[in-house]
Amino acid sequence: MFFIFIVGTAGSGKSLLTASLEKWLLGSEMSVTVVNIDPGVEDPPYTSDVDIREYVDYGEIMKEFGLGPNGALVASLDMALNHAPDIREEITDAGRDYVLIDCPGQMELFAYRNSGPLMVSSLHQTDSALSLYLLDSNIARSATGYISSLLLGVSINIRFGLPQLSVLSKSDILSPDELTKLELWSDEPYTLEEAIDESSTGLIREYAKSALVMLEQMGGGTNITPVSAKQMTGIENLYGEIQRIVAGGEDYLTYE
Amino acid sequence: MFFIFIVGTAGSGKSLLTASLEKWLLGSEMSVTVVNIDPGVEDPPYTSDVDIREYVDYGEIMKEFGLGPNGALVASLDMALNHAPDIREEITDAGRDYVLIDCPGQMELFAYRNSGPLMVSSLHQTDSALSLYLLDSNIARSATGYISSLLLGVSINIRFGLPQLSVLSKSDILSPDELTKLELWSDEPYTLEEAIDESSTGLIREYAKSALVMLEQMGGGTNITPVSAKQMTGIENLYGEIQRIVAGGEDYLTYE
Repeated sequence: MFFIFIVGTAGSGKSLLTASLEKWLLGSEMSVTVVNIDPGVEDPPYTSDVDIREYVDYGEIMKEFGLGPNGALVASLDMALNHAPDIREEITDAGRDYVLIDCPGQMELFAYRNSGPLMVSSLHQTDSALSLYLLDSNIARSATGYISSLLLGVSINIRFGLPQLSVLSKSDILSPDELTKLELWSDEPYTLEEAIDESSTGLIREYAKSALVMLEQMGGGTNITPVSAKQMTGIENLYGEIQRIVAGGEDYLTYE
Repeated sequence: MFFIFIVGTAGSGKSLLTASLEKWLLGSEMSVTVVNIDPGVEDPPYTSDVDIREYVDYGEIMKEFGLGPNGALVASLDMALNHAPDIREEITDAGRDYVLIDCPGQMELFAYRNSGPLMVSSLHQTDSALSLYLLDSNIARSATGYISSLLLGVSINIRFGLPQLSVLSKSDILSPDELTKLELWSDEPYTLEEAIDESSTGLIREYAKSALVMLEQMGGGTNITPVSAKQMTGIENLYGEIQRIVAGGEDYLTYE
């Protein structure tokens, strides 16, 4: 079993990508278990095989403890941690090739609380796993937005500690020229540096350039894989990247 | 007028710090305007002088457009942007020494959407401003949590582009020994590097150390100012740091 955790900010397209990735994997005759671990989601665009909502009732928790939406999400995740072994058991009982885990919509309540990383490790245990970190095309279309999003990705990566791929989500909102530009930034970081110079000044420019140096030092830190879940484009490429990690393990990500 | 934007993840203690900072400034005989720009807040711990809720009704928007809490927050912020000139006018009419702006609880819906940075610049215009970025002591108490939180701060800084101070929020939850340890990490980054080496392995360690190099290159990037809004400790120090920026402008932050 190979675990794929789909993470990113609220609205970055995690659930749609989960659905499209499932569809693609099934179409390529691989078996998939789809797991939803967002207690607060309503009507996800897939049918989950395993669902945290069968273990915690977000709405009930909100009422019972008189919490707002954030407080209820955090409380739900904390409580769900007690059920991690049961959730894992459902996953191992199914025993399929890939396990796609759609993570909570609010990354800051999931990555930056102890319960998020604990849930992730409790679910995959010693099975191989990676994280797909989604960049919102709307923000990544500008050079400083691109850098800022990747930095956020590194910060999240340090929380979860899994090999991580940066996925440019909803790439269909970009024009062909924009997409080409971003692919160039991904492969040739000096073009990203030029874009930062052209489009920013002062502190923003300074910090963005420092961040770029760090990303380059991390080996392929500026790389992104564009995907449009809506149009089902880029998924084959993404699968190729996933396979390199499945085959090479952590080594792949430090290879230059 | 000097604008202070208080930013950070949900639950990091922004509203409490806003209230305590107001209290301290008034106690030191400075005039303060407190502005709430979180459309979804309920019962903030201060009396706002200017409030976004007088311009947009979060609950109404949620009902009218059938949105969830996140969608309603984003829609409210987008709509509030139209009222930024009016909100600014209330602030300039008051014309006080300091303007404290309590930003929306969910940083990812505020910093990583275009409306957040737009709102920030629309409010302060050409008046001097800085951002206080709050680190959650609960996460920052571990070396990798500390690094991860600071990285998130740089990412947010690139979005808002203001001189930024990192504030260790709710420091009262730390033991005296822990607090001393974090103050050492702040002032002597090699101790933070040692702590990363001791407490992590593999990818996490590698990325955390790359991030530390970047933070050091940014000049004082590991610096944090511990504050307990609850116990009203550290606020005088924080004011000192704020003053250095007020006096020196952006130059201060690039000084080594």
